[in-house]
Formats: sequence, C-alpha cells, structure tokens
Amino acid sequence: MSKHEHISMSVIRRLPRYYRFLSFLIESDVMRISSKELSEKMGITASQIRQDLNCFGGFGQQGYGYIVEDLQKAIGEILGLNNLKKTVVIGAGNIGRVVATHMIFENQGFKMIGIFDKNERLIGESIRGIRIDDSASLEKFCNENHPSVAALCIPKEDVPEIIDRLIALGIKAFWNFSHYDILVKYPDVAVENVHLNDSLMTLSYKSNDL
Amino acid sequence: MSKHEHISMSVIRRLPRYYRFLSFLIESDVMRISSKELSEKMGITASQIRQDLNCFGGFGQQGYGYIVEDLQKAIGEILGLNNLKKTVVIGAGNIGRVVATHMIFENQGFKMIGIFDKNERLIGESIRGIRIDDSASLEKFCNENHPSVAALCIPKEDVPEIIDRLIALGIKAFWNFSHYDILVKYPDVAVENVHLNDSLMTLSYKSNDL
Repeated sequence: MSKHEHISMSVIRRLPRYYRFLSFLIESDVMRISSKELSEKMGITASQIRQDLNCFGGFGQQGYGYIVEDLQKAIGEILGLNNLKKTVVIGAGNIGRVVATHMIFENQGFKMIGIFDKNERLIGESIRGIRIDDSASLEKFCNENHPSVAALCIPKEDVPEIIDRLIALGIKAFWNFSHYDILVKYPDVAVENVHLNDSLMTLSYKSNDL
Repeated sequence: MSKHEHISMSVIRRLPRYYRFLSFLIESDVMRISSKELSEKMGITASQIRQDLNCFGGFGQQGYGYIVEDLQKAIGEILGLNNLKKTVVIGAGNIGRVVATHMIFENQGFKMIGIFDKNERLIGESIRGIRIDDSASLEKFCNENHPSVAALCIPKEDVPEIIDRLIALGIKAFWNFSHYDILVKYPDVAVENVHLNDSLMTLSYKSNDL
C-alpha cells in the first residue's frame, strides 16, 4: 500500500472521522450522500470535504454525491485498516487494561497478540482471551510471533529500558500513552502519542474565559 | 485571564509539552536553559521554540536563555492551570475509572468534585474519596456545586440525553471520550476530544509502509 506522500497529516488526521461517519451512515442504510449533506452532519464545510477527498483522486461525482460504501472502503484502504498489524500491549495497569479490554483493534487495523507486564500479581491473568505474560519473556515472544506494533501503557520512567528492547525486536510503530518522547531517540519509527494530561491542559486554556 | 486571541491553536497545543519539559527540568534542579539546549532535549528546532514563546511576548534574554521556573510559571498561567475549574466525571465504567483514578486533575487546571453513573452496581462506590452518584441526581448536585466542566466517559449513544442536561446546568467545557460530536449542536462550548479509535487509525496509516 503506497503512502500518499503528498497528503498533509492534517488531512490524514481527518480521515478517521470521515470513516466513522460513513460507517454510521452504512449502518443507517444510507447509500449515497452529497458533500453538502455530509458537511451538515459533520459540522465542517462542504468545500473542506471536497478538498480533503480530492487529495486522494476524488471519489464523488458532480451532482450525484458520494457512494457511501465505496467512499468508506476507499478511506479504510488508505488508512490500511484491512492490513492487520500484530500488536503487543506493554503494561497491564489501568490504562493497559482499558486498551486491551476495549479497543477493538481489529476495526482499526491492528490485532492484539500479546500483553506484557513486570508485575507478578498481574502475570497469568487473561484479557479478551490473551494471557498477561512476564515482560522478561518479550524477546522469546517477539522472536516467535513477530509483532510490529506496541501500545506503550507504562509510566515514563519505565520506557527507556524497554524501548531499546522493543526496537531491537523489530517493533516499528508505537501507540504511546507514556510521556516518554520516543522520536527524540528513534526518529524513524511511527508514533501516535496519547497525552491525556496535555489534552486536559489544552482544555484548561480553552475554558479559561468561559 | 485574557485568552491570547491571536495565538494559533497549534502553538497552544505545544504549550503543555513545554510545560512538562520545564517541570521536569525544575525537578532536576536546572535553573536556566537556552533555546538550543531545550530544542535538543525536546527534539524540535530552536527557532520553533523562540517563535512559539515569542507569541506570548517572549520570556528569554539573548545569550542568556530562559529562567526555567519563570517560563514554566508563565506557561502555566497562559494555560490557566492555577484556576481550578470544578469538574464532574460522567460515567464510571473503564474509561471513567481511569480518568477519575489517575488524572491528577489539580495539576492540569481542574478539580474533580463529582462522579456520576446510571449503573446501580457502581453507585455508592468511591474513587479518590469521591462517591459515585446516580446520574439522576445531576441537577441537584450541579445546582448546589456549580461545576463548569464535564469529562464525558460514556458511550456515544448515551450522550444526546445527558448533554442537553449538562449544558442547561451550566457546563461549558467538555473533556470528551465519547464519539459524539458536541460542537455540531453546541458550537460555543469548549471541547477537547480524546478519540482513541481515531488515534489508532492514524497510527495504522503511519505504519502501513514500515
């Protein structure tokens, strides 16, 4: 699957939202939608929608609108959602537990194949049919199963030791809940940071004058 | 506190990261830092740092660098972190529980004063000393305690009913974990969306070619 090199990340970041809306329309048996209707439902301008979707060659027809299912499928392909990437969850504390329990990874392009923690009290428990293993066994597991993605659900201070091991084991993409800045040391891997504290601070700013 | 109206949100969104780094430097007893050193630690260019901080009138002195504590304090003030906003957590399921248990709201400008759920099995439990109350008692609670912020940790389908009530009760800012798009109906409130699925899909895109 070719990365659409000339598409800005700000367009890419809007695609999951289109994908969600289109999936919702499919569930509601909507077959076709104009950019105007889509814009009213999504709260963004029709011209923004046309501009975004034109980045990928355009899916709509003038005066006819978009075929919902085709558009959803095309966006899913761009996002690589059908290409399930083997994923390990590192850390089975509260955040790791939410991630392992509730993220239906398969719908978003990932397949959870392992969960690891160093806490002996958690090792041996199962989440969604997957046993929490000792972090010490990461090397053996990865050499046998070749995951390419890790969800990092551990505190910042625990990251430096484990990140070097994960990179050496061939992990190339990180869903990072820690505050450790992976790209400083490893600029070539793919990282999506989920910084809940940063999001709260931004909300603090936005709500100052309300 | 005046909102810095001319500052773009992309600059604002970087401030929490500066704040975190500076807080870390304070813990490490670093008193002063140049934009060059800060840039090496943070993995962004020194000119980006100078440009960002100049938006707020500039804190550094040529050839001397930034006083870490002053800069951290100034950024904290811009973000409004000292102005603790009374916050209720709506939903005490897995995500609500992570939020209520682990977010040290006080460090990010918020004070959690209530947790609500409609699930009778959860009502009466306590998290961090706060009792989970019945969602039916929201009106009474808000009229007495006047929270201005809500963390929405409920499924999308449960939002339409409760959002109207929260808005009517004076809630003006939302930390939104649901996939409900609040701004479509209420464009004037402050919203920070945490869309974990969207983040995963973006990571799927980024990791397609690795």
